[in-house]
Formats: sequence, structure tokens, C-alpha cells
Amino acid sequence: MTALQDLYPDDYSHCHGCGRLNAHGLHVKSEWHDGECVARFMPAPYHLSMPGYVYGGLIASLVDCHAMATAAAATMVAAGEVPGRDPTRRFVTASLHVDYLKPTPMGVELVLRARPEDVGERKVVVTMSVTAGEVECARGRVIAARLPAHMVGAGS
Amino acid sequence: MTALQDLYPDDYSHCHGCGRLNAHGLHVKSEWHDGECVARFMPAPYHLSMPGYVYGGLIASLVDCHAMATAAAATMVAAGEVPGRDPTRRFVTASLHVDYLKPTPMGVELVLRARPEDVGERKVVVTMSVTAGEVECARGRVIAARLPAHMVGAGS
Repeated sequence: MTALQDLYPDDYSHCHGCGRLNAHGLHVKSEWHDGECVARFMPAPYHLSMPGYVYGGLIASLVDCHAMATAAAATMVAAGEVPGRDPTRRFVTASLHVDYLKPTPMGVELVLRARPEDVGERKVVVTMSVTAGEVECARGRVIAARLPAHMVGAGS
Repeated sequence: MTALQDLYPDDYSHCHGCGRLNAHGLHVKSEWHDGECVARFMPAPYHLSMPGYVYGGLIASLVDCHAMATAAAATMVAAGEVPGRDPTRRFVTASLHVDYLKPTPMGVELVLRARPEDVGERKVVVTMSVTAGEVECARGRVIAARLPAHMVGAGS
């Protein structure tokens, strides 16, 4: 399946977290499967907080971009579009909340599993868990807002 | 004044957000002034969300590290230590909340102003604002926990 981020229009594909056109970015890739959105990410050795553990700011960044993709997919399904095939809608973050449940170990692929909790046309609430192997390390709750019209094409 | 992060012990100075020993990191620097903690940060051109605007995950990362320094300073003051002179205590993030009020413009130095709202020996609540010039772009609320003893020296 094509990642949702690979179907953002070019103008929206520069994001440091998930833009395919950002050479310095994290390249978060999210896939939609039957109501759940899943992303997998292997932190780089320099993404540490302290030796052996992953930086919380990285986790917040993954949660942020993955939530935007989840919000897009949920509204697309509601409108009869197909996530992973049709162009991905662009949402922006209104609020981001992360609870860090346990220290996140380095050297393990992180798995983010997200679900839309409340889907409106212009606002979506997304919740997710972040696991490293069997350990649930963090939980996120994000409010995503449909990209305001005045930002479309801004700066480009 | 010496930044609080420059006074973390070496073992705690590898953080991707604020560690002086992380060659790939953001190098957040926070200074304590009479009850307020201030950090200034100029995003790199690749720290964008879309052209013209700063990536929200970067802002979350800045809020995260700046809050840990604020928590450390607040508990140090309470214990009679001097932030910016004595070794900085190490806190970890229990929860991170960011409200994105307005799109954050690129090309402007961001200023983070934080205050401790509730100071316990092992837990501190920090609130802050993030401004770009005259515009308040984001607000953060972070719960910081004193580094658990079992993580001290972990992985090193």
C-alpha cells in the first residue's frame, strides 16, 4: 500500500516530519488499514534522550505527523475516497498531547497505531499508542484541523 | 549566563533536543532569570511544515527540552542551589501538551518563556508560551519528573 504521505500534493510534501521532498526530514510513513492507521519508525542513533533511550521530542514529532495522516484518512473514508490511493487531504495540528508511559528503548522499531476518535469535516480527534516491541511507551491525543484556505500555497 | 543545558553532567548531555554532546541535535539553550526561563531558537530552513511555516514537531521538541530545564531550575532554587552556576538537575518528560495557536512563520527567532506552575521535589508542572516576533504561536504545558534512579547511567 502507498503511504498516505506519499500522496500529499507536492506543495505539502516538504514537512520535516513526513514530507517526501524534505531531504533532512524524518519521512514518517503511515498506512491505513480498516479504520486503523499504522506507522513504523526506527530512530537513528542520534535520536536519543540519554544513552539507551529515545528522545521524547522525536516521539512527539512522529505522533504529530502520524495523527495528521490518520485525520486525513478518516475524513477521506467518510467522503467515499480511498486512503492510500487518492490524494491525501492536508491537516494541521491544533493541539498535541503525549503521555510518556515508560522510557522508550533505543534499537527497536517503534510502531504507532492510531484511530480517529471523533471525525468532523474540518476537525478530527486522533488517539494512538506508541510501542517498542511488547512495551507501550507512549500514548498520544491530537486534534487535527483541516488546512485553512489562507495557508494553501502560502510561501510557495 | 551559562545555559542550564551546559551544566548537565556529561552522561545527560547527549539529548537530541538539548545535549551539548549531540552533534546532530538542536542544542536548545535555556536561561533562568528571576523565576522565568527563556530560550531562543532560530529554526533551520529544513524545519518546515509547509513552505513559510515552522514544523509543529520542532516546536514540541523545543517545548519539551525547555520545560525540563525550567523544572530543574525551579527545584534548584527551592533547594538553595543556583541555576546557571550549579550542576543542572535532570528531569524527564511525563507528559507534553502543546496548543498551536497560529501558524509559526519561518525566518524569525522563536522565543520560549516558561514558568514553573507547581513545584514538587520529584514533579514539576511547567507552562510556557512560544512567540515569533509579536505573535504568540503556541502554548505548552509539561509535566516533568525527576530522573528515576534506575535510569541514571543506563546504557552508558
